[in-house]
Parts: sequence; C-alpha cells; structure tokens
Amino acid sequence: MIIIRTPAEMRDWSLAARATGSTIGFVPTMGALHEGHASLLRAAAAQNDKAVASIFVNPTQFAPNEDFAAYPRTFDADRAMCEEAGIGVIYAPDANALYPEGYATYVNVEKVSAGLCGASRPIFFRGVATVVAKLFNTVLPHRAYFGQKDAQQCAVIRRMTRDLDFGVEIVEMPTVREADGLAMSSRNRYLTPEERQQALAISRGLFKARAMMEGGERDSLVLVNAVRNEMDALNIDYVELVDANTIEPLARATGRVLLAAAAWVGKARLIDNIQYEVPEQ
Amino acid sequence: MIIIRTPAEMRDWSLAARATGSTIGFVPTMGALHEGHASLLRAAAAQNDKAVASIFVNPTQFAPNEDFAAYPRTFDADRAMCEEAGIGVIYAPDANALYPEGYATYVNVEKVSAGLCGASRPIFFRGVATVVAKLFNTVLPHRAYFGQKDAQQCAVIRRMTRDLDFGVEIVEMPTVREADGLAMSSRNRYLTPEERQQALAISRGLFKARAMMEGGERDSLVLVNAVRNEMDALNIDYVELVDANTIEPLARATGRVLLAAAAWVGKARLIDNIQYEVPEQ
Repeated sequence: MIIIRTPAEMRDWSLAARATGSTIGFVPTMGALHEGHASLLRAAAAQNDKAVASIFVNPTQFAPNEDFAAYPRTFDADRAMCEEAGIGVIYAPDANALYPEGYATYVNVEKVSAGLCGASRPIFFRGVATVVAKLFNTVLPHRAYFGQKDAQQCAVIRRMTRDLDFGVEIVEMPTVREADGLAMSSRNRYLTPEERQQALAISRGLFKARAMMEGGERDSLVLVNAVRNEMDALNIDYVELVDANTIEPLARATGRVLLAAAAWVGKARLIDNIQYEVPEQ
Repeated sequence: MIIIRTPAEMRDWSLAARATGSTIGFVPTMGALHEGHASLLRAAAAQNDKAVASIFVNPTQFAPNEDFAAYPRTFDADRAMCEEAGIGVIYAPDANALYPEGYATYVNVEKVSAGLCGASRPIFFRGVATVVAKLFNTVLPHRAYFGQKDAQQCAVIRRMTRDLDFGVEIVEMPTVREADGLAMSSRNRYLTPEERQQALAISRGLFKARAMMEGGERDSLVLVNAVRNEMDALNIDYVELVDANTIEPLARATGRVLLAAAAWVGKARLIDNIQYEVPEQ
C-alpha cells in the first residue's frame, strides 16, 4: 500500500500510471470507512488497472457549528479496509497542503445545490465541489465512485463533471444498509443504542413510500406525508420528492425521482433516500 | 492546421498527444488576434512539442450591457496568424458545446477578483476563471500563456491554477505596444483616429509614474494622481496602485506592485498597466 501526502506527489504518481496506459479508478472519502465505502473501493479496484482512495476530512464543507472536529478519524482501520478491497494508493493530504494560506478559489454548482441538504447546509456543496475538483485534478482518474446514499452530492458531482469538462466517468453505487434497513453512514457512530433504534424510522418511511409508488401513488404530498408520519418522533430537517437529476421539487412523481429525507437523531444529522423510475404510461 | 470544434475531440487529441510523451503549450484567446497574442503563440510553439490556441468569445464573462455581440470576430486572419506562429491546433468550439442547456457550474476566485476590473465588471473574472478551468480540462496543457496587459486576469489565473491543483505552468508575457506606446488590444479596433490619439494618455501617464517610481517615489496618491492628470480628458474607470499578486490596494509602493488604469475612450473600455519591483532597502 502506497500512502501519499501531497498533491504534487499524487499527481506525479497518476501521470506515471497514465503514461504506462493504466486506467485509474478513484474513491474520494472522508475516512471512517464502512461497508458502503467498501462497495465503492471494490468496484474501483475491479474496474480499473489502478485504484486510489483519498481520505481527507474536508474543512471547507463544514460550517462552524458542524461536526468537523468530532468527525471520526480511523486511519488504521480505513487503511486495512482499502488494502482488503484491492486499493493500491491512499491519498491522505494535510489540510494545509490542500488549502494553503491565501487560498481563494471555490467551485459553485448552482440550482442542483440549492435544495435539500443545500438549504440547511449553505456552504456544504460548494466545499464538496471544490475539493472534488481539486482531487480530480490531482488524482487524474478515469472513473470516480460515489454512493447513492448521498444522492444530491451525486447530482452535484455529475453536473460539475460535465460542466467543467473533466472527462471523468462518474460511477454511482447503491446505498448499502444494515440488516434492519439503516443506511450505513460514518455518522451512525454518534448514535446511542436507543437513538439507533429511533433512526430506523427514516428507512422505514422511505421503504413505505417506495411501496406506495410501486403501487401507483404519484402525489408528492401523499408520499412525503407517509414518510413524515413514520419519522414523527425525530427532529426532521426535510422530506422531499425531487427530480433525481435537477433536484427540483416535484408535485407529482414523474421520470426518475428522488425521495430524500434528513433528520437529527441525538447528535447525528442523518440522511437517506430512495430513487424510483416512474414507468412511462 | 487542425481545427477542432468540440470538447470531446479536443480532449481526445490532447490525450493522444500526451500518450506519446509530447508537451502541450496552450494560448487561450477570444480571437481578434494582434501582435500581443502573436508573442504568446510564438512562445507556446517554441517552448512545447505541440501548441494549441483556443478562439472562443466567452459569453459568461460579458455582462448584458457589454460588447459581446460587437466583439470583433476575425477567424480567417486569426487562423493565418496562428499558422505563421507555429500553432498546430485551433480549438474553436461553439458556445452551445461549452455551455449546454442546464449549465450551472462557476469557478469563483475570491479577493483577487474583487478590485480593479472586478469592481466595475462584477461577473467578469468568474466567467474568465470558469472558461479557463474548462479549457484546461479539455486541452490538458503543460504550459498556458497569458499577456501581462491583463495583469489582474493573470493574478486570478495564477491563484486558480494553484488553488485547484491544475498542475499547469502559467507563463506570462510582457505587454506588446504600438510604436507610440498604446497597449495592443482587440478593442483598439473600436477607436476612431481621434480617440486613438486621446487613448495615448493612458500609457503616457503610466510611463510617467514608472519613471517617478524609478526615481524613488513610493506614495500611492502621488503616483495615482500623476496618471490621472495625464488621463484628465478621458472617462476614467480606475487608476490604482495594488500588490501585483493579491491585487490589494497599497498606500505605498512595496514589493512587486501593479499600477493599473482603465478608461472609456469612445465605445472602447481600455485597460493598461505597468508592473514594478520596488528594490529592497
């Protein structure tokens, strides 16, 4: 396993790999890896000649009142998981190497970033788009892997990648869940056993609404209320039905839809979603 | 001469050139090429295995009240100048290819973009940084060439290139002037013979201030007023002494300074500047 700490060394490694004709698969992460990440890591290793994972808790996507300092750092376990998944390089730069003094450049993806998590976390997607642009320019991947649990993030990254002509193929992998339905998340570590039980209301509500869509329900209010009713005991941030590409709110389910929810459970802000392709009439 | 019209074809050409180990030099332009551009084109051709020039009047850097529609388009003459300078590829995409429907991503370089031209043209540098990021991702150059006549643009591009880890070497070339001192600009074509004479006041004022700095003058107000006095008959936008890297206003000349001026002369908004390295005490 190669551990790389600076953008210059990472770029040199990638240029050398590309010069030999190797394809590069890339999984950007903030560490605290779980089985959801593992599915991305394995796909990157299987589908490319070389596979790189980055581990970087990105300060520019946290607001001052958020959990940047508390975010779990578990490098040794992360490294073992990367190794087991077939990752050859871990890129784990220092914050100072990515954001040196005088840093001033930010990538904004308008519209797609505005709703859902963007509404309650106004600088979040700017931070995500900026760091992913930097990582793409450094790792120079052919393919990059993202989890659908972060569905709005996927939409932002797809839009940015196309708009800025990155020439990177974005591969999205299905949400990985615990046996009882809870979507895997690094922030599940914040939950007490009792809170963990309460958190199941999110996936339970989403699954219920999916069954309703499969049964023909198209009305946004009906679907959203079905989810909200299940989540009644939680501190809900949002439950919304939106277009899966544009993240624009929908009054009725049509095309590829995203039903997304966010709630505070104890100290953890958890998100989850389901996607559904409405069959053409 | 190869003419390329789409990002996908441009990227394929560049990847193929890089795969053979060739270095790529790149000159981004809006066309209407003059001797200032020619110096950049010749440098790109001389210092790299392959040289690419882009010709693209970028809509996102013009405000609605500006001269996007009137901006001179002189493709045949531009092509001849590129050929003569040793450029092998002209990348001349359609606006629709670079900004398709749903386009939503913009690169903002804070601070450096705020003053001088950024104050009177609020979306200008966002448009410049965005299109240059797109062009870098498509042309994949090793070196990119910019003219010091656009000194603030150089500072913005330097900052963005470093901040987003583009790994592109930014090469700046000195301002090329007419025999009487007028800085070459595509917008000089807007000037009547009389206006062209009036426009000489800008370079005359800047040269005078440079002589004063060489003579030991350091006071910003004195230097700026010397330029403004020469430009008295023009409709001045700004005359300012700033740090050449941060574009922050200076009360006294220290370090590498930029003395920059902008004024309306008839229909043309003209800019010019001089840079001066203040000797250490």
